[in-house]
Amino acid sequence: MNTNVIGPLLVTLDLGGTFVFALSGAAAAVRHRLDIFGVMVLAFAAGNAGGMTRDLLIGAVPPAAIASGYYVSVSVLAGAIVFFWHPLVTRFKHSVQWLDAIGLAFFAVAGAEKALEYGLIPPMAALLGMLTGIGGGMLRDMLVREIPVVLRADLYALAALAGALVVVAGYALQLSPVASTAAGGLLCFALRYGAIRHGWRVPSARAPGGAAKGKEQEKQ
Amino acid sequence: MNTNVIGPLLVTLDLGGTFVFALSGAAAAVRHRLDIFGVMVLAFAAGNAGGMTRDLLIGAVPPAAIASGYYVSVSVLAGAIVFFWHPLVTRFKHSVQWLDAIGLAFFAVAGAEKALEYGLIPPMAALLGMLTGIGGGMLRDMLVREIPVVLRADLYALAALAGALVVVAGYALQLSPVASTAAGGLLCFALRYGAIRHGWRVPSARAPGGAAKGKEQEKQ
Amino acid sequence: MNTNVIGPLLVTLDLGGTFVFALSGAAAAVRHRLDIFGVMVLAFAAGNAGGMTRDLLIGAVPPAAIASGYYVSVSVLAGAIVFFWHPLVTRFKHSVQWLDAIGLAFFAVAGAEKALEYGLIPPMAALLGMLTGIGGGMLRDMLVREIPVVLRADLYALAALAGALVVVAGYALQLSPVASTAAGGLLCFALRYGAIRHGWRVPSARAPGGAAKGKEQEKQ
Repeated sequence: MNTNVIGPLLVTLDLGGTFVFALSGAAAAVRHRLDIFGVMVLAFAAGNAGGMTRDLLIGAVPPAAIASGYYVSVSVLAGAIVFFWHPLVTRFKHSVQWLDAIGLAFFAVAGAEKALEYGLIPPMAALLGMLTGIGGGMLRDMLVREIPVVLRADLYALAALAGALVVVAGYALQLSPVASTAAGGLLCFALRYGAIRHGWRVPSARAPGGAAKGKEQEKQ
Repeated sequence: MNTNVIGPLLVTLDLGGTFVFALSGAAAAVRHRLDIFGVMVLAFAAGNAGGMTRDLLIGAVPPAAIASGYYVSVSVLAGAIVFFWHPLVTRFKHSVQWLDAIGLAFFAVAGAEKALEYGLIPPMAALLGMLTGIGGGMLRDMLVREIPVVLRADLYALAALAGALVVVAGYALQLSPVASTAAGGLLCFALRYGAIRHGWRVPSARAPGGAAKGKEQEKQ
Repeated sequence: MNTNVIGPLLVTLDLGGTFVFALSGAAAAVRHRLDIFGVMVLAFAAGNAGGMTRDLLIGAVPPAAIASGYYVSVSVLAGAIVFFWHPLVTRFKHSVQWLDAIGLAFFAVAGAEKALEYGLIPPMAALLGMLTGIGGGMLRDMLVREIPVVLRADLYALAALAGALVVVAGYALQLSPVASTAAGGLLCFALRYGAIRHGWRVPSARAPGGAAKGKEQEKQ
C-alpha cells in the first residue's frame, strides 16, 4: 500500500523542488541582468541539476527531468514568472535565499525517497538526499560565479542531511512515507530558517596563526 | 534507408563539433597562457563536455568520446594546431566566439539527432540538443573562470534550441535527416551570426528599482 | 590469478586516493574558513568527484562511492582530521599541493585499472585514468573559485596520463598489476614532485603579440 503512495508523492516533491529552485535560479539571473534565455537556462539548471545528478548516480536513466516534459515546463513557468513579475520576487531582498531553503527541503526528502526506492542502503540514501538538495544551488552559484551556497551559508548541508535522515529513519521504522517526508522536509527548512533568521551555526575552524574571524555574512 | 544515413551523419557532426569546440577551448587556454597540457585539457573539455553529458543522460554508456579514440584524437589535433599556430587563430580577435558559434550549430543538431535515435520524446530531444550545444562552452568558461557564454552572449541558448527544433520537426515530418540537419545547423549559426554582428537580442529583465542598463558587451 | 589481485588492489587505491584528496579538500576549506559542514562537503567533493565521474562514464552504476559506505566514511574521517587538527596540516604551507600530488597518483592508476576491467580499449583506459586523477582537484578548486590546479600547475595532466599509461602498458604486456600500479603511481608522483620542487615544466604558448611571460607561480 505504501508503494501506491510513494510514486505520486515523489513526483510531487520533485516537481515542487524543481519549481522553487527554478524560481531561485531565475531570481539570481535577473539580479545579474541576464536576458530571458539566460533566465530560462539558470532556472532549468538550478531546478534540475540536483535531480539529474541523483538519477544518473542511482542509474535512473534517462533522468526524470529528461524523460518527461513536466520538469522543463515547470522550470520555464518559474522562469517566466520571475522574468515578467520579478519586481514582486525581488522586492523581498532575500528571495533567493528563502526559495533556496524551501527547495532544499523538497529535494532532500525526494532524493532520499527515490534512492531508497532504487535499493541503495539507508545511509547512502540519506547522503544522496543531501546531494540532491545541494546540487541545484551549487550549479546555480557556480554559473554566476558566486561561492556556492553550500559552502557559504550556515547549516546548509547539515539541514539537507537531517531532513534526508528523517526519511530514511521513517523507512527503516516502516512509518508512513507521507509523515516521515513531511517531518524531514520541515526539519530541513526549520534548520535553515534558524540559520538565516537567528544565526544558528556550527563551529568554523580557526584560521591558522590567528583568531577565527567571523564567518562571512550570508548574502542574499 | 534513413537509418543508413543517420549513423555516419551523426559521427560527422559529432566529430565536427568536437573539433571546432576543441579549437575554441584551446584558443581560450592560449589566451590564458596555459602550458601545452592545459591547452590539451581545455581543448578536450570544451570539445567533449556537451556530448559526454548528452550520452550519460540518454544512457549511451560508455559515451562515444570514451568508447573510441577518434574524439580524443580530434581534440588533441585541435589543441596542437592552436598551440603551434595560435598567431593564426588569435589574429582574428573574436576567434573563440566564432568557433563557438560553429560548434554550437554542430552540436545542437547532433544532440537532437542522437536523442531521437535513443527514443526520447521529440520536445525532450530538442532540449537535449540544446544542452549538448551549450555544455562545452559552459565548462570551458567555468574552468577559466569566465561567465559562461550561454549566460553572457545574446541568442545563445535560443539559437541552439531553434536549430535542434528544426531537426526534431524534420524527424516528425519524416523529411531527409541530412536536409533537416543542414537547415537546423544553418539556422543556429545564423542566429548567433546576427547576434554577434548585428546585435540581435531578446529582452532583458529591468533591474529592480532602476532602468535596465545595456547588457554586458560580449567579450571575445 | 591476476583477477584475484585486482579487486582488493583497486579498492585500496581508490580509498587511498579518496582519503588523500579528501584531506586536500578539507585543507582548502579550512583555508577558506568554512564551517565544519563546508569542510565535510569539500572533503567529499574532492575525494569522490574523480571516481564518481569515472564510474558514470564506464557504466559502473551506482558508483562505488555511493554503493558502499566506505568512501563517505573515509571522506568524513579526513574532514574531521583536518578540522580538529588542522594546525598540523596547515603548518606545512603547501599541504594542499602535496596531498593533491599523492591523490593524483592514486587515482590515475586506479582509474586506468578500473577502466581496463570494464573493457575499455587501452588508450581510452589511460585517458580515463587521467580524468579520474584530475576530477577531484578540479571540482575542489571550482567550488572555492580558484583556477583549477590542472590548468594552473605544471606537469599535472601529463603526470596523471604518464602514470595511467604505465598501468595500461603493464596490462598489455601482462605484467603483474601490483608492479605496474606501483610503477605508474611513482612515476606520476615523481613528475609532480619535480614540477613542484625543481620547476620542471612543459612549454607555454607565447602570448599573441608579445614575449611569453613567466607562467603564473603555483600557489599553495
